[in-house]
Amino acid sequence: MAQPQASEGAETGKPPLRIGMVGYAFMGAAHSQGWRTVGRVFELPLRPEMAVICGRDADAVRTAAGRHGWAEAETDWRALVERDDIDLVDICTPGDSHAEIALAALAAGKHVLCEKPLANTVAEAEAMARAAQEARDRGQAAMVGFNYRRVPATALARRMVEEGRIGTLRHVRVAYLQDWLVDPQFPLTWRLRREQAGSGSLGDLGAHIVDLAQYLAGEPLAGVSALTETFVRERPLPTAPSSGLAAVSAAGTGPVTVDDAAVFTGRFTSGALASFEATRYATGRKNALRIELNGERGSLAFDLERLNELEYHDGTGNATHGGFRRILVTEPDHPYLDAWWPPGHGLGYEHTFAHQARDLVHAIAEGRSPEPSFADGLQVQRVLAAVEESAEKNAVYTPIAA
Amino acid sequence: MAQPQASEGAETGKPPLRIGMVGYAFMGAAHSQGWRTVGRVFELPLRPEMAVICGRDADAVRTAAGRHGWAEAETDWRALVERDDIDLVDICTPGDSHAEIALAALAAGKHVLCEKPLANTVAEAEAMARAAQEARDRGQAAMVGFNYRRVPATALARRMVEEGRIGTLRHVRVAYLQDWLVDPQFPLTWRLRREQAGSGSLGDLGAHIVDLAQYLAGEPLAGVSALTETFVRERPLPTAPSSGLAAVSAAGTGPVTVDDAAVFTGRFTSGALASFEATRYATGRKNALRIELNGERGSLAFDLERLNELEYHDGTGNATHGGFRRILVTEPDHPYLDAWWPPGHGLGYEHTFAHQARDLVHAIAEGRSPEPSFADGLQVQRVLAAVEESAEKNAVYTPIAA
Amino acid sequence: MAQPQASEGAETGKPPLRIGMVGYAFMGAAHSQGWRTVGRVFELPLRPEMAVICGRDADAVRTAAGRHGWAEAETDWRALVERDDIDLVDICTPGDSHAEIALAALAAGKHVLCEKPLANTVAEAEAMARAAQEARDRGQAAMVGFNYRRVPATALARRMVEEGRIGTLRHVRVAYLQDWLVDPQFPLTWRLRREQAGSGSLGDLGAHIVDLAQYLAGEPLAGVSALTETFVRERPLPTAPSSGLAAVSAAGTGPVTVDDAAVFTGRFTSGALASFEATRYATGRKNALRIELNGERGSLAFDLERLNELEYHDGTGNATHGGFRRILVTEPDHPYLDAWWPPGHGLGYEHTFAHQARDLVHAIAEGRSPEPSFADGLQVQRVLAAVEESAEKNAVYTPIAA
Amino acid sequence: MAQPQASEGAETGKPPLRIGMVGYAFMGAAHSQGWRTVGRVFELPLRPEMAVICGRDADAVRTAAGRHGWAEAETDWRALVERDDIDLVDICTPGDSHAEIALAALAAGKHVLCEKPLANTVAEAEAMARAAQEARDRGQAAMVGFNYRRVPATALARRMVEEGRIGTLRHVRVAYLQDWLVDPQFPLTWRLRREQAGSGSLGDLGAHIVDLAQYLAGEPLAGVSALTETFVRERPLPTAPSSGLAAVSAAGTGPVTVDDAAVFTGRFTSGALASFEATRYATGRKNALRIELNGERGSLAFDLERLNELEYHDGTGNATHGGFRRILVTEPDHPYLDAWWPPGHGLGYEHTFAHQARDLVHAIAEGRSPEPSFADGLQVQRVLAAVEESAEKNAVYTPIAA
Repeated sequence: MAQPQASEGAETGKPPLRIGMVGYAFMGAAHSQGWRTVGRVFELPLRPEMAVICGRDADAVRTAAGRHGWAEAETDWRALVERDDIDLVDICTPGDSHAEIALAALAAGKHVLCEKPLANTVAEAEAMARAAQEARDRGQAAMVGFNYRRVPATALARRMVEEGRIGTLRHVRVAYLQDWLVDPQFPLTWRLRREQAGSGSLGDLGAHIVDLAQYLAGEPLAGVSALTETFVRERPLPTAPSSGLAAVSAAGTGPVTVDDAAVFTGRFTSGALASFEATRYATGRKNALRIELNGERGSLAFDLERLNELEYHDGTGNATHGGFRRILVTEPDHPYLDAWWPPGHGLGYEHTFAHQARDLVHAIAEGRSPEPSFADGLQVQRVLAAVEESAEKNAVYTPIAA
Repeated sequence: MAQPQASEGAETGKPPLRIGMVGYAFMGAAHSQGWRTVGRVFELPLRPEMAVICGRDADAVRTAAGRHGWAEAETDWRALVERDDIDLVDICTPGDSHAEIALAALAAGKHVLCEKPLANTVAEAEAMARAAQEARDRGQAAMVGFNYRRVPATALARRMVEEGRIGTLRHVRVAYLQDWLVDPQFPLTWRLRREQAGSGSLGDLGAHIVDLAQYLAGEPLAGVSALTETFVRERPLPTAPSSGLAAVSAAGTGPVTVDDAAVFTGRFTSGALASFEATRYATGRKNALRIELNGERGSLAFDLERLNELEYHDGTGNATHGGFRRILVTEPDHPYLDAWWPPGHGLGYEHTFAHQARDLVHAIAEGRSPEPSFADGLQVQRVLAAVEESAEKNAVYTPIAA
Repeated sequence: MAQPQASEGAETGKPPLRIGMVGYAFMGAAHSQGWRTVGRVFELPLRPEMAVICGRDADAVRTAAGRHGWAEAETDWRALVERDDIDLVDICTPGDSHAEIALAALAAGKHVLCEKPLANTVAEAEAMARAAQEARDRGQAAMVGFNYRRVPATALARRMVEEGRIGTLRHVRVAYLQDWLVDPQFPLTWRLRREQAGSGSLGDLGAHIVDLAQYLAGEPLAGVSALTETFVRERPLPTAPSSGLAAVSAAGTGPVTVDDAAVFTGRFTSGALASFEATRYATGRKNALRIELNGERGSLAFDLERLNELEYHDGTGNATHGGFRRILVTEPDHPYLDAWWPPGHGLGYEHTFAHQARDLVHAIAEGRSPEPSFADGLQVQRVLAAVEESAEKNAVYTPIAA
Repeated sequence: MAQPQASEGAETGKPPLRIGMVGYAFMGAAHSQGWRTVGRVFELPLRPEMAVICGRDADAVRTAAGRHGWAEAETDWRALVERDDIDLVDICTPGDSHAEIALAALAAGKHVLCEKPLANTVAEAEAMARAAQEARDRGQAAMVGFNYRRVPATALARRMVEEGRIGTLRHVRVAYLQDWLVDPQFPLTWRLRREQAGSGSLGDLGAHIVDLAQYLAGEPLAGVSALTETFVRERPLPTAPSSGLAAVSAAGTGPVTVDDAAVFTGRFTSGALASFEATRYATGRKNALRIELNGERGSLAFDLERLNELEYHDGTGNATHGGFRRILVTEPDHPYLDAWWPPGHGLGYEHTFAHQARDLVHAIAEGRSPEPSFADGLQVQRVLAAVEESAEKNAVYTPIAA
């Protein structure tokens, strides 16, 4: 058996945090990179150990273990969550298995990090949030993986909103635009089937932007009005189990059972208006998560395709010399940046996972509940459910269940 | 009396087009600049003459005549529209007087150019469209002033959509963002009173983006779902009659009776999804009219704050060397550009009025119906009415009346 | 004879400023647009009259008079400058005739506006500056047409430098990039012949950026080091007299006798370093005049392709919320903007000529010497001469003659 | 002793590549991140082992070993290079020690990766290139760390130049702008002393841009003409040994003995013109390495502050729909990208070190000479020497020694 990869050397004397990860596709790779890096860059109170990676295919999971640096491989997640030598279960599977794994892990006394969306249904999410609350009383942490809160620029935006720099909120407009479904010959992968994915762009992209919008606004949505659409209703069947984002097509077609795109409006509890769009059909937009907040005192704007930048307009200065300024979010006093490179040396997408790991390790060590919690994940689920309900009911304004 | 200013010298022998303009505020100045310039730059079949300017205040209108280059001043628009030496009535007043003036001018046998929105109510707009249709049979032209169709970049976008460059339309997202109402002490000008303005940001900004979106898409909206909001419900009364955009406040306050902002979604008849936002509360955004269209073969994006540019993504090329390209819309074969400056020498906002004048003069000379017609203006009005109806009915999806 | 076009109506009682313009190509059209507009937009102490346009070809100049709105046409510039009913001679011809016309006009007691570059040689420019200085004592104004000082964004930049907002200057980097010579089959127009154009990109583009850099810096260059190049040394002969920017090629070729491109560095008198580039071979750059100034307290950046914007970095604030801000130069307290449209409604290239006319009219009425003066034009000529001398002498650092 | 961190698990059976790294400041951290990641992301023919880290301060280097994941710590680089269990020496020290360490390591039969600039003098660099050439015959690899060749966007640019997409080169303009010396109270760190740093912005920033420009152009510079300047000639002494980029000042001042900024022009061997600028005084520019290449068929532009983007203008298409396009360099067929994340998920600065490691490991395994070689590093050194010579000789054009 290979030696587990510790983010910090054994000689440091810090208590270990032994991690078991379920899933090893795109998210598994990203989380692995986060766990591998976090202790090398940040001063941590615990020493994360990449102990066990788990997946159904024994050969594939063993290869993934070697590739990503996990000490052991498992094929049964039930066995994993019961192991005594695991402290934290990191769930990187599709949404339909989140609830079962997370509930078992919490019941087994583990800390849990669960990829977004928290679950495929509100009922599952409710059970998970309840279990997390109970586990919280036993000292267990449960966190949902809305990693876009951990881009330094969005974290800075949150801090600036908290500091009152944009004042009373008036507008939030947010879009998450991708284009990988534009070709009608792209095959029917699991992400296009309701039974596995729960929903389409809504659960995948919409979950991110609903969470990010509420997080940055510092308040929840009160209600939504939505239209959804499935532009291409039949697609070729894939030839083989696929990763969701790429596949080879085969003979025959099948029905797409999720939304291709969703546009919705909403009101925040403060009365601010919001506009959302999530789509996989915005030709030429690869991963454009854009958010802008306009308040009485200022505005903030962010685009994930330029993730080291935050645009800020200070509305309290005079207009003569004012304008949206491009803050390069690479200064030492920007969130997470004191541990990284000198000013101007930008970070990338994957760093959000190291930052997420850092915040989770601190919360565990300090006995705090990490954010976003499962309750936060449940609330996002309720917004998505309201979006779906509104879309079914002719776009009528639908309050978010409390 | 001063000599009328002809855009072309009298010796050219072209038939004159004698213009009477009602209103001399912001739009009056802009239309004057358009009429003064159009014949100097474009080859026209008629010779526009800036004959008469009309307004209620005799001193003010005389000053405006001298300033803007009109040969005569009138104080009674009813007298103006009856004059035999006027061929075209150009209406630049607030929306509550459009219907009355336009109907009288059409009845008097004049061509009419009417600022947007066509009217404050659908009923008025219907009457106007009907009258225009009847006048059409008598050889009269009637056009509504959606000048943003005449930015070279938007005209190029329209041409590219027509050429099939973006293919089947999937998404249109459009916002018109200003910020001049952010300060709660900004006074209650006519633009904030329903009886004069008809509506708030919806009729002012929303009318522009509804027209532009449908024009670029090449198809009408089928229905909308809307939320509107008045963020600041009481404002100081202005001290004096104001121009709408700037004023001095006085003692006392009054209720704002129009919307401050509107967010709405919609479906085009083809099934494409649309997202709209119109607001005067987007701190730092001065005149940001942004529109993006995503189609199966490509995408187009435009921002009025950079009006000499059009962004275009050709989705049919390979992704390796692809990306949104910034077309500098200043080439001789771009719309309107053969008459202007060499490549790279940009135009401004006001040139849209010269282009509008050019297209109208050609339509009149050639006996064609100009676009956008009063019927087009009526259709926009119906969309705005559906937006208001939806906003009143809890955002329920509201079809556009045909 | 047609009635002269007055920018203000005759009834205003203001004294007239009767203009005679020599040349009617690109610059003639641009100056006409400026004269036609200036009195309609700005409050002026004099009333500009577009009295006489002059050119060698009688038919062409008559057509141009009608097109651009000049009351009369002349074919002999010597006759023009002697007319008693002309107050100002506006010279829009190629550089090889500037000296002769300007000297005659000054001798005849006229005010003079002369297009840039002031002359084709330092000797000519010296004679012109001397004559302008003598005429100054007789109350005549002489101005050189560096219109890029009159973009609101550059004028704002100048004001900010004067206010000390960027502090001690460290760097100026400036480029003027065009691409109309990339095609080796583009014909040998007058702009590519030394005897008419004086120099190539250096006198055409380089003159603009040398003037703008020194104007914005608020200090002259002390010396330069230069490389120049003619990439394509033989080009097809044009078939007919051409406008310089476009032509049809014919049989045969001829030698290009001017520079295609120039790169040079320099020192300002304060010790700041400068970097310049002027070329007609920057594929895809149509009219990209870019300038950036870095000082101890801040930086400013401008790009003519986005002429309504000025980028400003305030280096005195904290870096946490700092960054280059995009000032949309359309506020009422920005230079020239109080007379134009509401915030966010941008201007274009041609407006620089109206602004130039405004400033010249004010200087004449108020008995002030307009800027840039012929002495300023001479100083730019000396910089260009030093650039050429350095380029001939193996790039050795060459001081600017005082 | 801690277990060495292998980028690939031991069970893979691949031959190890045992690395000893000298230096553990900024570059040491960056190289460590590269070595730690490379085998987790890329399929490699060898298995890099982070064996030994070396530095003078025993405590500090031990801490660095634990932090960055090196199995052992050494305090004597001479001992390190002699160890039998080391295959590759990675030199991350200041430039004054490069030659000595590299020569010893090559003599000891090691592969060598040496940070840029290769050396502080041409003589040292010549010795190193000679030694590398001899070692080459013994199967040893020697590479210099110009990591900016390994940004996917610059690597793509190189590929596109090779493919002929921009055709005959006309212009290269390049600037490397930082601002950390703007404050005259910033202390006199080693980077500001000639004896340690060799030169100032020239060796630090200039070396990068000279290499990158020549690499992208695919040809060397023939000669240069240069101006350099030291704006602030006395600075406070630092209180303690510092990392170069940040320090606390103490009583007393000392002379700055390197250049603060350099501006230079040059000619490529093909005749293309180049313009360079390197400075630490560009207020607000944090790490702005910008390069643009204009060729007869197209242009390319890159800015390190937006490192996931490459701008490309295809000059062979029609201008009507042409323009600079923003290629998001995150597609699977872009350089290095097949191993990373889905399209649109950007990389950061540090990834250049993983890419550099990848290319070096492949070259070693395949017996190829890695690029950039020590000969390439020497050639850059000769350009920098010519820059210094020209600056001393009044900017006279100075050929690059062959």
